[in-house]
Amino acid sequence: MRGNHFGKMFSLTTFGESHGAALGVVIDGMPGNLPVNLDDLRALLKRRAPGQSQFTTSRVEADEPEILSGVFEGKTLGTPIAVIVRNTNQKSSDYDSFKDSHRPGHADRTTQDKYGIRDHRGSGRASGRETVSRVIAGYFAGLLLPQTEFFAYTHSIGAIENGPATSSERSILGFTNTAASKEAEAFLLDCKSNGESSGGIVALKITGVPKNLGEPAFEKLKAELARAMMSLPGSMGFEVGSGFSVTSMKGSDLSKDSRHFGGMEGGITNGDDIFLKVAFKAPSTVGDKAKSGRHDPCLLPRVIVVVECMARIVLADHYLRQKAYS
Amino acid sequence: MRGNHFGKMFSLTTFGESHGAALGVVIDGMPGNLPVNLDDLRALLKRRAPGQSQFTTSRVEADEPEILSGVFEGKTLGTPIAVIVRNTNQKSSDYDSFKDSHRPGHADRTTQDKYGIRDHRGSGRASGRETVSRVIAGYFAGLLLPQTEFFAYTHSIGAIENGPATSSERSILGFTNTAASKEAEAFLLDCKSNGESSGGIVALKITGVPKNLGEPAFEKLKAELARAMMSLPGSMGFEVGSGFSVTSMKGSDLSKDSRHFGGMEGGITNGDDIFLKVAFKAPSTVGDKAKSGRHDPCLLPRVIVVVECMARIVLADHYLRQKAYS
Amino acid sequence: MRGNHFGKMFSLTTFGESHGAALGVVIDGMPGNLPVNLDDLRALLKRRAPGQSQFTTSRVEADEPEILSGVFEGKTLGTPIAVIVRNTNQKSSDYDSFKDSHRPGHADRTTQDKYGIRDHRGSGRASGRETVSRVIAGYFAGLLLPQTEFFAYTHSIGAIENGPATSSERSILGFTNTAASKEAEAFLLDCKSNGESSGGIVALKITGVPKNLGEPAFEKLKAELARAMMSLPGSMGFEVGSGFSVTSMKGSDLSKDSRHFGGMEGGITNGDDIFLKVAFKAPSTVGDKAKSGRHDPCLLPRVIVVVECMARIVLADHYLRQKAYS
Amino acid sequence: MRGNHFGKMFSLTTFGESHGAALGVVIDGMPGNLPVNLDDLRALLKRRAPGQSQFTTSRVEADEPEILSGVFEGKTLGTPIAVIVRNTNQKSSDYDSFKDSHRPGHADRTTQDKYGIRDHRGSGRASGRETVSRVIAGYFAGLLLPQTEFFAYTHSIGAIENGPATSSERSILGFTNTAASKEAEAFLLDCKSNGESSGGIVALKITGVPKNLGEPAFEKLKAELARAMMSLPGSMGFEVGSGFSVTSMKGSDLSKDSRHFGGMEGGITNGDDIFLKVAFKAPSTVGDKAKSGRHDPCLLPRVIVVVECMARIVLADHYLRQKAYS
Repeated sequence: MRGNHFGKMFSLTTFGESHGAALGVVIDGMPGNLPVNLDDLRALLKRRAPGQSQFTTSRVEADEPEILSGVFEGKTLGTPIAVIVRNTNQKSSDYDSFKDSHRPGHADRTTQDKYGIRDHRGSGRASGRETVSRVIAGYFAGLLLPQTEFFAYTHSIGAIENGPATSSERSILGFTNTAASKEAEAFLLDCKSNGESSGGIVALKITGVPKNLGEPAFEKLKAELARAMMSLPGSMGFEVGSGFSVTSMKGSDLSKDSRHFGGMEGGITNGDDIFLKVAFKAPSTVGDKAKSGRHDPCLLPRVIVVVECMARIVLADHYLRQKAYS
Repeated sequence: MRGNHFGKMFSLTTFGESHGAALGVVIDGMPGNLPVNLDDLRALLKRRAPGQSQFTTSRVEADEPEILSGVFEGKTLGTPIAVIVRNTNQKSSDYDSFKDSHRPGHADRTTQDKYGIRDHRGSGRASGRETVSRVIAGYFAGLLLPQTEFFAYTHSIGAIENGPATSSERSILGFTNTAASKEAEAFLLDCKSNGESSGGIVALKITGVPKNLGEPAFEKLKAELARAMMSLPGSMGFEVGSGFSVTSMKGSDLSKDSRHFGGMEGGITNGDDIFLKVAFKAPSTVGDKAKSGRHDPCLLPRVIVVVECMARIVLADHYLRQKAYS
Repeated sequence: MRGNHFGKMFSLTTFGESHGAALGVVIDGMPGNLPVNLDDLRALLKRRAPGQSQFTTSRVEADEPEILSGVFEGKTLGTPIAVIVRNTNQKSSDYDSFKDSHRPGHADRTTQDKYGIRDHRGSGRASGRETVSRVIAGYFAGLLLPQTEFFAYTHSIGAIENGPATSSERSILGFTNTAASKEAEAFLLDCKSNGESSGGIVALKITGVPKNLGEPAFEKLKAELARAMMSLPGSMGFEVGSGFSVTSMKGSDLSKDSRHFGGMEGGITNGDDIFLKVAFKAPSTVGDKAKSGRHDPCLLPRVIVVVECMARIVLADHYLRQKAYS
Repeated sequence: MRGNHFGKMFSLTTFGESHGAALGVVIDGMPGNLPVNLDDLRALLKRRAPGQSQFTTSRVEADEPEILSGVFEGKTLGTPIAVIVRNTNQKSSDYDSFKDSHRPGHADRTTQDKYGIRDHRGSGRASGRETVSRVIAGYFAGLLLPQTEFFAYTHSIGAIENGPATSSERSILGFTNTAASKEAEAFLLDCKSNGESSGGIVALKITGVPKNLGEPAFEKLKAELARAMMSLPGSMGFEVGSGFSVTSMKGSDLSKDSRHFGGMEGGITNGDDIFLKVAFKAPSTVGDKAKSGRHDPCLLPRVIVVVECMARIVLADHYLRQKAYS
């Protein structure tokens, strides 16, 4: 009820402050007998780990997952899966100056007001570090949907938009168009040297989507995906299919290309690819502090995998729900 | 679990097919001793009722609410409030041709696939008529937040954007700028005569917002609002504050004007006004059928009050939650 | 969150005060395409209806169910099923004297304290009349488990215990032993003439139980059944298998006859028959008021079918849950 | 949805197999700024720890709690509290013979059937060891109700009933009557030497109970307590107030002493003491294996504190719920 729980049939409960002993997640609703590969989980975590390039914070966390329960001899037991990641680099002096101030757009002040207390060593639960738990859960959710592919990438950083894919790999900034990525790299380095930060838009394409996921009224799949994405730190907007641009299309235009609907009709998957976008604002830490290199100048490079993982969690949850009724 | 339930402390369960006996809602979590004014409820329902103008379907439903429980001598009892609205105009011959076909972007096909059965007399639960239950619940939610004002209006219809407010009243199409409304009226009449339909964007401003609503991780208030709005039929996108346009702003720009954040920091209300937008696609019914006048050429005129009501429900729910912990 | 909601995959939300306009239930989670027989539902409702004999209140309610949604051409649609029963005999003068007093063991006082308001025309939500909603839901739950039989009967009324079954039918007081029933009939008539009331114990045997229902930790099936039965008005105790008497058996005794465990091991059904008992206290209305004949001298005759229905609901819910994971 | 989650406003999610790396709990819904005393927590855990006397298994577990999140500088943060206890004595050879067999009344077989896989090193989630997580949560729940006292004790072991209290302290077997305890000690030692085990009944008295806890329909406090207690391994029966014995009392007898109702009317607390009992069966491990001393001959000495903790959790949850509405 305090919002650290997500999902129904495939559900997660997360915990951990950015500068506490550990972060973690308990996953309830994982069927038994599914093979678990720790290296695959590590690879997923590495995609959101800091310190991978000059475009992310230099704070280095090993992010080594420890499985405490739910897995036995390499297979899921059907019991709750608890995984923790210890905080190894709890250097909090950077944050000391935030103790009595707050960053605009950040949770510093609202957290203090809401609870009457705050872990001023860092951003507590409002830290982007909280998303490590989501990536762990996303790994396990993915085991339930082996036929479904989730591919997120950078749609834009600042005003720089991705172009036609020139590679099947994502660049260090998440673009699939190499030229756009180079341009954005220069832009972000410039931001960084000026103590600035930038926002951007993540796009996600899901292929091999099972039909019949989502429920007709309040739990339309688009609503569930919206909630999942808008629960990410820094998110400001969400759209499916042709999204906001659809509002200037007429009914007959829409009916000519089903891609406008983003893979759902009436909020229920129809087997088409799901397509959605999530907008993220520029990080709140700016000025001298941002120049120190211990803050991300842009959330996108690290948040792309989190967007994929949240979608995996939502679809896994609805996949199990639909199984119950069919 | 089939998605007809919404909210936790202030929760609703809705029911009813568009051409069944009745639609309704059960509200659980209403405190006792609050005064209920049936005329206020009727007035709210009238705002989403069809047949109000040439811009909405000519299908006429009385939409007279009947309170079955939870209210005694004009006051809430603290027990579940059940309210129904009977379907009085169940003319379904219009839909007969949909029995074996489906409208692109509509739930006809996915409903049949999902349940193996469908009430082909109309759109069943996927009908916009389902929102009558949301308006009823929104009325009661509003009783919990008498100091908070919810004002939604048309941001745009098709390519026509609202201008500076020239009236404190909304026009028949929901604009606050008279000239823009006139232009849109002509546009929609043209759509109608051509069997066309149009999308649009609703904006919502909430003032007098209590602080500390929303939870830090998965139930950030922006996530809860996103889910609420993206559960509306025809919604395609959602944004808070400066939304998608924020992605091209730099961190230092953002920090200069707190309105960019839309009244929440870290997903928790800070007492500032909440500002959000919801994009709706053009209705699916086009061609000769649309010319008949029994379908809305644009969802906006009737959906504006529904957007307000969903926001009321979300805030009432989080208001009660926060009370528990403070 | 105010406790009018029960179940997860097969869930119900109930509403209605004893002297309000109607009572009812919304069932969410019913699969589509299942045949609905209104006469079967009426027959089930008749088993809990008052006025059937001199052993129940003479208050006569038609209890005619009206289906408002979720059923079309005799089949479930997969959408929420809403059913109401109107209160036709809202004679409340009997209760007028309770307006400013309260009956010991009854909810009169606690309801007033909790909500600050009370529908003094009757017992509001605390009335046994609330169970009409449970019987309706139990009918629909039963459609999901056609192979499972639920047979509840009177284990005892006052000190009079049921004997070996002499009939496959239940007597008017719910006994399967005719002699015991005759004895109890005389006892209850005596109670009634003295303005007295009596308690009793209901036994329930479930045969044809699917394996694997129930979850290992907090939602063991025995816990779910306990909660269901202890939510009934007047219930004071619950036991499974050999229950309280098992506490004086040694481990080796227990292992000789699996019936001691009541059909569950580790809280999960093993395919054996489920056996449980529920204790009910004597009704609170005693003295002159009880002599009037408008109150039940014993809850058992009418509560037996409610016990069956609550068990149906619990098993249907867990049946759907287990399907999701297997 | 797999049953490892309990409570709504004060909620817990537990995890861990008896022979896995660790057991633990995540508590969501703890208000901020409450002082945490690790020694108090340790003292509570010690009451359920094995190896305290010759009447409990000789398996020794340090059961040292490690707080991973939610507490900062000795105070709760309002964020999720995660606590783990590592399994230090994972000697599982005792259980090897259970790999391909199952103990009657135990979860061995149903777990295998349900999940298609089982951690045969021990009893997995069905182990009594799972209750360590409940005790941890009970400690934190207690912080919310400092005025409320929970005192559980042994009502009976086998046929030996507790007598009038001769001490305010509980004996090693949980009795408050010294003579009864001595008798039971001799009985249990005899059981142990014969490879036998015994059941018993725990009584719980709660004083200083806040009024207005519990909800009128499905979440009556007696129902919530029943569910909590019947979710304990080995529980077979539950009763409140005068329980099963109330069934042979007449209405007028009941009304003479409010203690018969156990502190609740209509399922809602009235401020009177709550009184309840829980029946536990004899442990399943009998014969030579039981003689080894690595199994409890009776659950009671260690389960008493768990009964108290489950009650704390239920009342804390309902205390927060009621705060929201009042």
